[in-house]
Amino acid sequence: MAIQSFVEKNLPRFHAELDALLRIPSISARREHQADTRAAAEWLHDHARAIGLEASIHETKGHPIVLAEWRKAGPDAPTVLIYGHYDVQPVEPLELWTTPPFEPSIRDGRIYARGSVDDKGQLFLHLKAIEAHLAATGSLPVNVVLLMEGEEEVGSENLMPFVEANTERLKCDAVVISDTTMVAPGVPTIGASLRGLAYFEIHVDGPGHDLHSGSYGGAVINPATALARIIASFHDENWHARIPGFYDDVDPADDLRDQTRRVGFDENRFLEETGSPETGGEAGFNTLERIWVRPTVEVNGLLSGYTGEGSKTVLPAHAMAKVSCRLVPHQDPEKIQTLFIDYVRSVAPAGVRVDVRVLHGGKPWRAKIGGPLYDAAGRALEKAFGKKPVLAGEGGSIPIVPEFERVLGAPVLLMGFGLPGENAHAPDEWMSVENFEKGILASAFLLDALRKKA
Amino acid sequence: MAIQSFVEKNLPRFHAELDALLRIPSISARREHQADTRAAAEWLHDHARAIGLEASIHETKGHPIVLAEWRKAGPDAPTVLIYGHYDVQPVEPLELWTTPPFEPSIRDGRIYARGSVDDKGQLFLHLKAIEAHLAATGSLPVNVVLLMEGEEEVGSENLMPFVEANTERLKCDAVVISDTTMVAPGVPTIGASLRGLAYFEIHVDGPGHDLHSGSYGGAVINPATALARIIASFHDENWHARIPGFYDDVDPADDLRDQTRRVGFDENRFLEETGSPETGGEAGFNTLERIWVRPTVEVNGLLSGYTGEGSKTVLPAHAMAKVSCRLVPHQDPEKIQTLFIDYVRSVAPAGVRVDVRVLHGGKPWRAKIGGPLYDAAGRALEKAFGKKPVLAGEGGSIPIVPEFERVLGAPVLLMGFGLPGENAHAPDEWMSVENFEKGILASAFLLDALRKKA
Repeated sequence: MAIQSFVEKNLPRFHAELDALLRIPSISARREHQADTRAAAEWLHDHARAIGLEASIHETKGHPIVLAEWRKAGPDAPTVLIYGHYDVQPVEPLELWTTPPFEPSIRDGRIYARGSVDDKGQLFLHLKAIEAHLAATGSLPVNVVLLMEGEEEVGSENLMPFVEANTERLKCDAVVISDTTMVAPGVPTIGASLRGLAYFEIHVDGPGHDLHSGSYGGAVINPATALARIIASFHDENWHARIPGFYDDVDPADDLRDQTRRVGFDENRFLEETGSPETGGEAGFNTLERIWVRPTVEVNGLLSGYTGEGSKTVLPAHAMAKVSCRLVPHQDPEKIQTLFIDYVRSVAPAGVRVDVRVLHGGKPWRAKIGGPLYDAAGRALEKAFGKKPVLAGEGGSIPIVPEFERVLGAPVLLMGFGLPGENAHAPDEWMSVENFEKGILASAFLLDALRKKA
Repeated sequence: MAIQSFVEKNLPRFHAELDALLRIPSISARREHQADTRAAAEWLHDHARAIGLEASIHETKGHPIVLAEWRKAGPDAPTVLIYGHYDVQPVEPLELWTTPPFEPSIRDGRIYARGSVDDKGQLFLHLKAIEAHLAATGSLPVNVVLLMEGEEEVGSENLMPFVEANTERLKCDAVVISDTTMVAPGVPTIGASLRGLAYFEIHVDGPGHDLHSGSYGGAVINPATALARIIASFHDENWHARIPGFYDDVDPADDLRDQTRRVGFDENRFLEETGSPETGGEAGFNTLERIWVRPTVEVNGLLSGYTGEGSKTVLPAHAMAKVSCRLVPHQDPEKIQTLFIDYVRSVAPAGVRVDVRVLHGGKPWRAKIGGPLYDAAGRALEKAFGKKPVLAGEGGSIPIVPEFERVLGAPVLLMGFGLPGENAHAPDEWMSVENFEKGILASAFLLDALRKKA
């Protein structure tokens, strides 16, 4: 109990330290915040050293990667790699923040600040867990490598090249990531899945330039109408995707389906959170199934012709859509890309030219539940929260997760402490104070549990 | 032949005068050109006085209306009202102009300048025809009222109120408008029809704010996809509109259909002009029928979600389309508005809110071919061009044309001297030198022909 009591005694200082990290505007997407982003890396490097880790900064083509290591548990002890990111999303629109994004403010049990939950708070809690072990016992039960990057919000382009170039140094028995959410307050959650991604741009070209819709309308195919026909053909009346072969590799009896009924879905909270008039989607599946275990075809953007005020009578030369598919096991992004492109071509109306461009791809991921890592996580979370964790799917994509497994050969654990409605990429981002504090304990208990069998 | 020889002798001066008018940047849509727009009105007022007309400037809530009158032909002579507009379209993008828009330049038999063909050149040629009569004979064969407005490019909002308030003064036997095009060089053309307009904005609202397309995608209806479905439902596989009742008032045996086969359609020129890969539209109709006698449903603009560079994974809260119907006799804009709104509501997918707003409407028009006005126009155009004029439909809308007929009770003649490819609302607008010069003669001959029976 020495660790737990150290944590409890030092919470006010831990909050003050987190505030200091949150005050650094490390917006990786913005050139004018380049120095700030580096400052966050240096802050973490210095802090890791101060609590007794070996820390090092590694330059990349973009923002630096920080490693913090403790390898004195011995060759027989497992090695845990903890991944997190110190960069944050842009903060616009600023006027929608109740308090400024880089002036942390605690209200109603929430730490409001850009980066509080995504991901500085969730990364920093691991540092505090490590500090607690070292301060209370002088050592850690396992070897630890903290891998902290500054480009997660801009695509993590330099992360996997760094990992691949340092596989020996980063060799580990488990990867732990805290960058996801719990299903509800007080309900510790283990991430069971991530969807993959295949992102496209569709360009439809008709006339060589915008035409007068009176003088020419009716006699040439309208690219915007043609694009609408293509998009309308993506789903049948049951919102089931019509792209041939799209579901071929999807497991209809996915065991996460049962889990959607066990975690308890609160439809009212979901509607409040999304502001949608109602839930809706593929027939035959509940809301969580639609997010956790079913692939999607979603329009992310549309642009054509005149979109300003009033009535300009233009027949557009061009129409564009951004469309992305979320993928589930065992769909392969490259295969889906081919199926999608073939399908769009097959349904493209005559009289226009259609071009499909692939922008982005990422594999789906499914946790390999069971084994020492998941057993340890279950015990640690139960000890910290007083309740057994639930398994929950996640509709978003973290393409580096399957990559970590592929390159390092170690299982990944998603042990997130966010909460629904946390505004991760929006104004008034917050992290629950309770989850920050219990997260420190959960992380500390996890290090113990990974050493000791149940 | 005195008139014709006066015109021929004075052509260099006429061109110089037109250049002076074209140099005035009377862009009615732009507040910074308000004084320039008034300057064009004053220029016309002064010029009309100089050639022997009574001219007056009439203030409106917007740009002024100029009247120029000559009423000495006596009570038994017919009165002709000639309508034109002195305002011009904006000129952006400036970099696409070969020579600056307000520095007229003659190249390859074309007068390049903003407003050359739309409508300053076509308005000014009537002034020159009137001047030729007055200079050569000391009088005009008919009474003439020139009605010149400065708001045609911004919707002519103040025109009809002015006409309605001055019906006695504007009472006439014929209305002549030169603001349309000939079907080909050397082929004088009488406008046989105009399409009407019903312009809408469709707004589809789903979630209360943009959502993460991973975390929520699949479980709420995507407004952009819903909008695409609505638009895709506008036409069947033959590009025939599906809106119930849409064609109820359309005459399937329209006698303009035969005319489309008589004027000679040049598909290659059409494709070159539009830059379209091919013609296309409602099955069972040729290209000119599709433009002249068939109504349309066209998308004019689309906007939803993220439309910048790269792949933002947003599930949009909102999607918008601008959609307009071109109407043909005897479709009524208000009836079509009701049918359209009802139809959109009937096909709107569940799970989103759909709102249809009416932006603009205008009635279709069909020339009442025959009678003294059309007989006179036929003779005048044949005399000026050495060829009988053809009748041609026009796909665009000039909502004031049916309004003139309604308020003044006089037939309208569309005697246009533009040409295909004239770039009326685009960079490098031009008017044919030949048409400007022959247009002066045609107008002069028309005044004669309206007095004298064939």
